[in-house]
This record gives sequence, structure tokens and C-alpha cells, in this order.
Amino acid sequence: MIRKILVANRGEIAVRIVRACAELGIKSVAIYTDADRHALHVKKADEAYHVGKDPILGYLNAHTLVNLAAASGCDALHPGYGFLSENPDLATICARRGIRFIGPSPDVIRRMGDKIQARNAMLAAGIPVVPGSDHNLESVDEARALANQIGYPVMLKATNGGGGRGIRRCDSEDELLKNYDRVVSEASKAFGKPEVFVEKCVVHPKHIEVQILGDTQGNIIHLFERDCSIQRRNQKLIEIAPSPQLTEAQRQYIGKLAVRAAKAVGYVNAGTVEFLLDQDNQFYFMEMNTRLQVEHPITETITGVDIVQEQIRIADGQPLQYKQEDIKHRGFAIEFRVNAEDPKNEFLPSLGRITRYYSPGGPGVRVDAAIYTDYVIPPYFDSMCAKLTVWNLSWESTIERGRRALADMLVYGVKTTIPYYQEILKNPEFRSGRFNTGFVETHPELTQYVEKKPPEVMAAAIAAAIAAHQGL
Amino acid sequence: MIRKILVANRGEIAVRIVRACAELGIKSVAIYTDADRHALHVKKADEAYHVGKDPILGYLNAHTLVNLAAASGCDALHPGYGFLSENPDLATICARRGIRFIGPSPDVIRRMGDKIQARNAMLAAGIPVVPGSDHNLESVDEARALANQIGYPVMLKATNGGGGRGIRRCDSEDELLKNYDRVVSEASKAFGKPEVFVEKCVVHPKHIEVQILGDTQGNIIHLFERDCSIQRRNQKLIEIAPSPQLTEAQRQYIGKLAVRAAKAVGYVNAGTVEFLLDQDNQFYFMEMNTRLQVEHPITETITGVDIVQEQIRIADGQPLQYKQEDIKHRGFAIEFRVNAEDPKNEFLPSLGRITRYYSPGGPGVRVDAAIYTDYVIPPYFDSMCAKLTVWNLSWESTIERGRRALADMLVYGVKTTIPYYQEILKNPEFRSGRFNTGFVETHPELTQYVEKKPPEVMAAAIAAAIAAHQGL
Repeated sequence: MIRKILVANRGEIAVRIVRACAELGIKSVAIYTDADRHALHVKKADEAYHVGKDPILGYLNAHTLVNLAAASGCDALHPGYGFLSENPDLATICARRGIRFIGPSPDVIRRMGDKIQARNAMLAAGIPVVPGSDHNLESVDEARALANQIGYPVMLKATNGGGGRGIRRCDSEDELLKNYDRVVSEASKAFGKPEVFVEKCVVHPKHIEVQILGDTQGNIIHLFERDCSIQRRNQKLIEIAPSPQLTEAQRQYIGKLAVRAAKAVGYVNAGTVEFLLDQDNQFYFMEMNTRLQVEHPITETITGVDIVQEQIRIADGQPLQYKQEDIKHRGFAIEFRVNAEDPKNEFLPSLGRITRYYSPGGPGVRVDAAIYTDYVIPPYFDSMCAKLTVWNLSWESTIERGRRALADMLVYGVKTTIPYYQEILKNPEFRSGRFNTGFVETHPELTQYVEKKPPEVMAAAIAAAIAAHQGL
Repeated sequence: MIRKILVANRGEIAVRIVRACAELGIKSVAIYTDADRHALHVKKADEAYHVGKDPILGYLNAHTLVNLAAASGCDALHPGYGFLSENPDLATICARRGIRFIGPSPDVIRRMGDKIQARNAMLAAGIPVVPGSDHNLESVDEARALANQIGYPVMLKATNGGGGRGIRRCDSEDELLKNYDRVVSEASKAFGKPEVFVEKCVVHPKHIEVQILGDTQGNIIHLFERDCSIQRRNQKLIEIAPSPQLTEAQRQYIGKLAVRAAKAVGYVNAGTVEFLLDQDNQFYFMEMNTRLQVEHPITETITGVDIVQEQIRIADGQPLQYKQEDIKHRGFAIEFRVNAEDPKNEFLPSLGRITRYYSPGGPGVRVDAAIYTDYVIPPYFDSMCAKLTVWNLSWESTIERGRRALADMLVYGVKTTIPYYQEILKNPEFRSGRFNTGFVETHPELTQYVEKKPPEVMAAAIAAAIAAHQGL
């Protein structure tokens, strides 16, 4: 049995993994760079090791991390998401050093990381994919020829991209010509590989993804879907499980499709099959994420399954604890990604000291946060600093709980996306459940709220006004 | 529809009610005495009114509270638990002033508050009750005669008692003679009524209680049972839903029994029917609590029903949203009452400033707290300052989650019952689920843990040791 795990990540996801370890009686080892000396994951883990002065590099050096895992007596490594989680080399180096990598095999990571290979594997398994190229583009001319054949709009995508980067929509040949070099350049910079391909652009689809779990015995189950259509520039903001729009028949269909996709590639451990649902109710495979997903808490909340604990058990060689028929969904869960950003100012990061933090409570509220009072958010990382998940029996009551819990959560000192989410919750289109990935873009008015000042600022302002009035 | 509610209570239960109001779009009005100026319920409510310098009296004056409700435009009043929640006069005054009382009728509160009347009502409805007197005792001689007839041990109880006070076990005639005057005196002081009665003492039973909900249309349902056997001196410490010991058949039986009991008295709103389960697997009615219970969150957690919201809907005259067959239980929930007490020192209150508070998070954790960093716990009230509720699919995994969440919850500056609960979770008898109300008393060794020092204290101690070593 696995006894000690290196948590090769930071922030809230590292805290999440540490908590799973604690419940399983497994020791956890955190890592941190200078910028993360005071990070919560360092405080919560059983041990913590410094991996460098540079804020980021220490989290990205696979050799150093596996060496540290071995030196600190770990028998497994959890990559979290982001950083090296989808880097097949980390999985390979772990295997070579006898450290269990908590995720799928390097081969599957590599194949699904290459969007062309993934598309072709799905086509071969009879999974519907968006019309597009079955190989990397050789030139802008080939892109143009293919785009004309498919019909505009098209998406130009980095073959090794992910996380919503290296991806551009092109509505015309002009835009395609203009974007081609940009995407190639972005792909080279962000993913170290310049390959791109083109595929039909599904306009304003719903983003529906299915959580799957597979064990080393070949059992694969799904944990129902998540609706992640509320995105801004391909970055998810709010996720919902199950989708309030899907019928039970669609839910069953998409779940089976995801299991078939996972079986086609011999998938082991937790993964997510992402689909687009177009406006004609047609599902298309988009990509497979070979790691834990940011939004896994909503699936945990509606099914009761602890996905991170299952990942560890699977990496330990244990068979799945559940059969497909054991997995039930109950109620609705909404996750809000609390980003330290200013929605009124193009969502620019809003960094600095959190002067006061109050963690919301009461029924149906889950908090996965990396912050605390007096914590200083470092400028080097993603701006997501907490995730708020709410649950209730019905879709409508879950929205009301979300409204209440967002108001209950106090983050002073930096601006966050909380007031923006309050506006989204009031929006009739959102409340109907019938929104798509165009929601944020088509509702710019939702950033036009009036900001509430923290009570201490209010008190100071009132005192100043009184003083001014009294001529003091 | 109810639009504004006076929350006639304080602390975590006032916060809980404010949250329910917020989700229903109902305005909430808090009250506070001088001692509670900085209390969380004051910050969380939409409005707050000062009800006096004395720390407690303001919470106990029914006329003042109903006047305030009317003056602040409230159309309803929620009494919470404790204080005036089981005082039929408050309900009567509310009715007279056209303020809806969120609870049962004054008549039912009065009848169930009188333990003799309650016993007799249950006997008439065919509910098993513990053998005992069917009227108030006239004298110690009558008590002696009756006790001899029932057989020792017996319990001497205040007829109008509750909350574990005004109750003594007598193992012999000597003890009965010694305790009689004490209980009469306690009853007079605590409840303003000297009446006492005697009943058979069920030795080390399980405490099993059933949550019920009744509407003004006469529908009554149950929300399954809670196992509240982990008590110290009749004060509950840890509660579990459902009971890990009951069979599904016992669960169905006790649920139906509770509904029958509630129907027998025409019960409306939320209530709890408390039973003893003796070592021969026999259930006996103990008492009915005509109010919301401290431990309601565990029932909310396993059923998904928001009991406080249901209370408000019922008071509004709406029919129950659920039929009995809609109520499903899933997994197990454990509530830990986090008391500011020192378990190593006879559980004496440990008051003062909370120098640091960290609210636990992650999967399956619910927090209902009245505290925050720098909050000063006032000495005038109950020592319970937070409730931690954990949930998971199985009994075993719920224990592990509890262990993790208790470690995750940091309350520095005062001593709490958290480390004591960690010891209970390790105990094989507790883990078996087969514990009874004798558990705490028969396991005094569980207070013999080694206290962990907060990290800042540790850091200071290490620095001092180094300084001493260096002769500084």
C-alpha cells in the first residue's frame, strides 16, 4: 500500500491532495519555492521541502521532483493539475525510479496530449468528432484549403495545446491567414511544439465533460457529466454537475460514450472526456484531459465519491470500489472559481495581501481555498485562489444557495470574481440552465455592478465625512 | 409570504437561521446584548438591534422581542433553540401580535414541555414509554413507594425539565431520599416549576431521536434518526445520522413510531421525538423537543432537506415540499460540538480571545461556527462555539473524514473539545458503532491525550531554548 505521497503542486489543489492523503492515513510531502514559503499547502502537509528561489521552476523540474520523492521516502507522486500533470516525461521518470505516478500511463498521456492522435483514436472507436484535419498542417496553404472544405468559422488549434491556450477562432480566410503564424508561435512558446491543426468551429456550443475512473484491472466507470459552458476566453469560471439542460437520456448516452472513449485508449486512473454539444443537440468529442480536473469537487459533491482518494487507490493497484450501477447523482452542485481578478477591469489580476478572509459555512457549502487572513497572493501563478462549491436538491435552490454562500464569503484586500458571479446568478438565461460558451461574451453588462466596500472602508469613509462636515 | 424574520437568538444558531432567510430571499433581523456587540450573527443579518446591557436578559424577554419584531417590520419570529424556544408564552404573544411563530402551537409546546402530560399522551397513542409515574409526585414518600414498585435504578426528573438538566439517577432508596430535594430545588431554579416525577432508569441505553416535520395541512413526515449517545452528563457531544447500529428494519420502525407520536399531538413544524434503545433492543419514548435541535445539520446532510427553510415554509402555511417516500438518506454524517472547554480539566469553560481561527474545508465538511480570528468568547453563554459536520458514503470513511477535518480546524487562544474528539474517533468501541450513553463515563482515559501547542508557541519555545543554550 502507498504510504507517503509527494504532492508535486501548490495552492488549493495541493491542499486538496493533502486532505485526501490524511483521510487515507497516508503521509504527504509538500514542495515550495521562495514565493510559496507561507502558502497553505506547506502548512497542511506532513512535511515540506524547498525546491528553489525561482517562483515557478521548482514546480517544473521533473527530475528534481522525482529525486525529492525518492529521497523523502515517498512511494508515489501526485501531479495535481497544471504544471507537469500532463507531461508524459514525469510519469516515465517516476516509473523508472519506482515511484508510482498517480495518473495514467505515459503512453496515454502522450497520445491524448496530441490532439490529432486523440481525434483519430476517437474516430476509430466510433466516437463523433468535430470535422477537421486528421494530421498536422504542413503550411498555411494547407490550412486554407482544408478550411474552405470544412467551411468557416473554423478553429485553429495547437496540436499539443490544452487549458484553453493555443486556440483561435477564424471567421474568414483573412482571419485564418492572420492567425496562422500567431497560433504556431503561441504553440511553440506555451507547449514547446509548433504543430497546429484546423477543425470546424462549433458556434456557441455547450461544454459538457464526463468524469471517468479506470483501474488497472480494466474496469472503467463514469461519474456523470459537468457543464462547464460558463467560460471567458476558454477559461472556465463556473461549473455545474449535472448539467441542468441535459435530459436523463442524454446523460446516459454521454456517459456511455465517455466510457467507450476511455476503453478505446486503455485508460487508467481519473480522466475527463470533453465534448461539445451543438445547438442541434449533437455531441462531439473535443479532447481528453489525462489528469484531475479543477472542477472535480462538483462531481464529488453529487456522487459522494472522493475522486482523489480513488486516484490513489487505483495507483496502488486496487480495483475500483464502485461498479457503474453504484454511482448515483443527487441534487446539483455549482463550483465558482474565486479568482483574484478585477472583472470591471478586463479581469486583470488583483494581487496583494488579503486583509481579511471569512470562509463561508452552513448547509451545502464546500470550500477549497489556498488563502487565509494576511496571506499575500504571489504574482507568479494562476489567479484562482479559492473554489466555492454549493449543493442543493434542486437547480433553483442550488442557485439561491450559491447567492447566499458568495455573499457569505469575504475576501478583502484584493478584488475577486465574487461580485461578478452574483450578477451571473441573477441572469435569467443562466437561471434557465440553457446557456452556452457564448454566455460571458454576450453578457458584458454583467460586469457593470456597483462594488460594495468592505465595512472598515465604509466606517473610515463615514468618519472622514463627519470630520469634514465638522470642519475638523 | 413571510418577508422579514426576527431571529430571537444568538451565536451559531442565529447565523444558521440568517443563512436560511438569505437563501429564501427573506430579510433577517438580529438582536444582541452588550456582550454580543461583535458577535457573528450581528454581522451576518440584514439588520441588528441592541436589546440591553445585561448579557442574557435581552434574549429572554418575550414581550420586548415581539415588540421589536413588530416595530422592525418583521412578520415572523424564529426562536432557535435554548432561550425562549420552548416557552409557550413567546408563541402566544407572537400570535396575539400577528407575528408568525416559527414553531409549533403554544398548546403543543406546553403539553410536550410537561413530561407527565407527554408520557400520558404517548401511552394513549400506543407508544412505548419507560415505566414510571403518570402524575407529579406529591412527596418523597410517594417517590419512594413508586421507586420500590418500579425497581432501582430510577431517574428522578423535573416534570418541566429539558436539555439534560433537572435529572438525577438514583441507584438506591438512600440516593432517592438524598436527591429528592435537590431535584425539586434544581427544577424550581432552572424551570421555575418544582414538580418532579420518577421513572425507571434504563441503564446505558442508546439515545436515538427522530426528526419530524409537520405542516398546517396535517401532513407529518420523518427525516430518519440521529444517534446522540455520546453524551457527558446528559449533554450531547457528538451526534450521528443515521445510527451506525440500527438495522434498516429498526430505522423504519422508529421513524413510523415518531410520526405516530407527532400525529397523536397534532404536531406542526419541526420537532424531535427522543427515544431510548435499551440493551434488549427495545425502544422507549423519552421526550419530544418542540423546536429545532442543535444537531439538525447531520439530518440535513444525509437527506439534503434544509430543515430551517422547511420550518419557515410551514410557518408560512405552505404544505410540505416532500412526501415520506421522497426522503432518502445517503451516507453518514457526524456532528462534533466544538466547545470552548478544557477536557483535561473537567471540561471547564476556556474563554477569551481566539487568536487564530482556521475554518476547515475540502470534501464532506460543513461548518456552523460563531467564531472568527480575534473574536472574544463571552463568559455568559453556552460554551459551544462551533459545530463541525462531516459526511461520507460509509461509516468508516466518515470517521476518517472526521479525523482529518478536526485536524484541519484550528482554534487557537482557547482550549476546545477538538483533541478529545480525536481520541474518541480512535476508540474501537466508537468505531464499531455499538456505543451507548455510558461511553464518555466509562472511557475517562480518552482525556489523557498530549496537547499539541500552536505553531507560534512552538516557534517561541524553540527560539527560547536556542537562546538559553547560547547563554543569551
